Amino acid sequence: MDDKLMLMIPGPTPVPESVLLAMAKHPIGHRSGDFFKIIAEVTEGLKWLHQTQNDVLILAASGTGAMEAGIINFLSQGDRVLVTTNGKFGDRWVEICEVYGLNVEKVTAEWGKVIDPEAVRASLEADADKQIKAVIVTHSETSTGVINDLETISRYVKAHGALMMVDAVTSLGATSVPIDAWGLDVVASGSQKGYMLPPGLGFVAVSPKAWEAYATAKLPRFYLDLGKYRKEAAKNSHPFTPPVNMFFALQVALGIMRAEGLENIFARHDRLKNATRAAMKALNLPLFAPDSAGSPAITSVAPIGVDAEKIRSILRKRFDIVMAGGQDHLSGKIFRVGHLGFVSDRDILTAISALEAALSELGYENFTAGAGVAAAAQVLTQ
Amino acid sequence: MDDKLMLMIPGPTPVPESVLLAMAKHPIGHRSGDFFKIIAEVTEGLKWLHQTQNDVLILAASGTGAMEAGIINFLSQGDRVLVTTNGKFGDRWVEICEVYGLNVEKVTAEWGKVIDPEAVRASLEADADKQIKAVIVTHSETSTGVINDLETISRYVKAHGALMMVDAVTSLGATSVPIDAWGLDVVASGSQKGYMLPPGLGFVAVSPKAWEAYATAKLPRFYLDLGKYRKEAAKNSHPFTPPVNMFFALQVALGIMRAEGLENIFARHDRLKNATRAAMKALNLPLFAPDSAGSPAITSVAPIGVDAEKIRSILRKRFDIVMAGGQDHLSGKIFRVGHLGFVSDRDILTAISALEAALSELGYENFTAGAGVAAAAQVLTQ
Repeated sequence: MDDKLMLMIPGPTPVPESVLLAMAKHPIGHRSGDFFKIIAEVTEGLKWLHQTQNDVLILAASGTGAMEAGIINFLSQGDRVLVTTNGKFGDRWVEICEVYGLNVEKVTAEWGKVIDPEAVRASLEADADKQIKAVIVTHSETSTGVINDLETISRYVKAHGALMMVDAVTSLGATSVPIDAWGLDVVASGSQKGYMLPPGLGFVAVSPKAWEAYATAKLPRFYLDLGKYRKEAAKNSHPFTPPVNMFFALQVALGIMRAEGLENIFARHDRLKNATRAAMKALNLPLFAPDSAGSPAITSVAPIGVDAEKIRSILRKRFDIVMAGGQDHLSGKIFRVGHLGFVSDRDILTAISALEAALSELGYENFTAGAGVAAAAQVLTQ
Repeated sequence: MDDKLMLMIPGPTPVPESVLLAMAKHPIGHRSGDFFKIIAEVTEGLKWLHQTQNDVLILAASGTGAMEAGIINFLSQGDRVLVTTNGKFGDRWVEICEVYGLNVEKVTAEWGKVIDPEAVRASLEADADKQIKAVIVTHSETSTGVINDLETISRYVKAHGALMMVDAVTSLGATSVPIDAWGLDVVASGSQKGYMLPPGLGFVAVSPKAWEAYATAKLPRFYLDLGKYRKEAAKNSHPFTPPVNMFFALQVALGIMRAEGLENIFARHDRLKNATRAAMKALNLPLFAPDSAGSPAITSVAPIGVDAEKIRSILRKRFDIVMAGGQDHLSGKIFRVGHLGFVSDRDILTAISALEAALSELGYENFTAGAGVAAAAQVLTQ
């Protein structure tokens, strides 16, 4: 049915009606007192969400733009960086580093597996003369649904002294990313994920230590020059013309998040993840990420005996539910259920019910009808 | 009054209700057939608006981001570029070029004056061994309301062989920028201007000749790498997560523009400019740009005997009309009336009426009450 679409992808995610209506407000001038007040308010809200006193800067860009800004503002050509990669986005940060002439050392894991923090530690310990300037970690790897152990890795990075740079695009707002407690120096994210907003804004949190590095960093940048954003943010302003309607929406979304509370938001995502995983197990659909490292934002499933793309197609055509497919070499091999942002317990029941119907329609026999929904319901009502 | 704001600034500009409502639609997946159709449709519309068969690429960025992309994708460190500057934005493109290590030669004019095309010709003719790789021109200088003679300059640039790069941020959609007819290689613009959209999208049109330069250009870039956008655009897709709600809005706005027709759009802006300028003359308020180079998008006024900031303040407080102030050294010396995008004849009458009331309130005596409105009306009803 038209206008009946239900997004269960890892971005864009569903957006609350009140946020959508804020998108439809008439723009106001971005150099006005009214807009400065909005910048001040959303900046405070972002600091709350990021659990930090650091600067949190707002860019008109996708998450990739925010992440690129997070990398290139603090480094110079030839700098050695340690990049962890176990999926498409980790690979992307390697690519960005290489484009800018950084000297990349990688710690890798197979797609679907978690980065071993001890491997990061070993690399850092081997760097006796402290040549590694930054470690770049993808917290929740959107392409696989694996969450990496950022807390442990960041401890090792702090011990070494390198800058800790984090792609938190699908973790921020879905799980705790306590910037100050963990000592994260640069944290990038995007609006269309845990923020319950449409795409269009990127966010970068920057620590005082990262700003020290900024002072001597030499990679060229202008639109993505975070120093410009910091300077204007100090006046509750913005260096360029910001997407004012997205700011209206951000203001409303942060209000909704504050009303729910950080602990409740994180508990909800954890519950959605557990219910989804329990359902997949009950349906004998293999999970692509291990239980110990399942992302609270995305659950990837690698079905056996039934075609992932056919499942997605039926969900889309019969039930107007969109799930994501696999990317690159995982295309056709997995499907990914996004459950971050404005997603409720009810949505998981809905998605699993429809998934069961699709499995039946496809002649998949390795399950008992109703078992997935029952398993999900059990988790949700615990 | 709350919610009564009337924007007469050079961006954000007013947005039609149908466009705002499109902003409030639920997002859809950006890797879906439905979204690919939207990309295809808006790309066709953009080519129509740009009067070109060249690629027109869509970025999640401000106009500055689009312009930076337009510069850095086609050049290498040390390349010589000729930049014309007669205002804040021309200066900005100089700054970007310098950040990227380009070798900048400038052709300047005082703020408020027009760039002399013959000065550009002289510089190009002096470049006997064709070291100048690109010429960068700000078509409509937003900071002063001057429109430069792009047609003549581009003729000289074509004769020389350098790439013709254009900041068309406040000219695209307000006046004719016939890319193919004038042979413009790179043209950047932004959504919150002539497009009748909120801020959030940048556009860059790229000629085959510019793509040839891209093949050997070496400046580092990733998020602003236009090659990525071209590759995905060929599949009606996008390299990152695009601001899908802005695309919904763009689709509607282009529909409105197509219904009005290019010639009518340009004639309307010309009429709004002429009416505004006639009114200022009738009110004995000196125009900052000469008649021969008044931008169809913005009229700057340098009042004598009455304070520009006080005028703006009264318009804002008493009549909920926002006009722009002067930037940098022009702060307090001029005010700028934006009349681009979704602005009608009625809006000019409204703005001039309110301006007259403000002048009276401020004790300005050098005008006959009603003279400005009468002069504007005469132009509008010709």
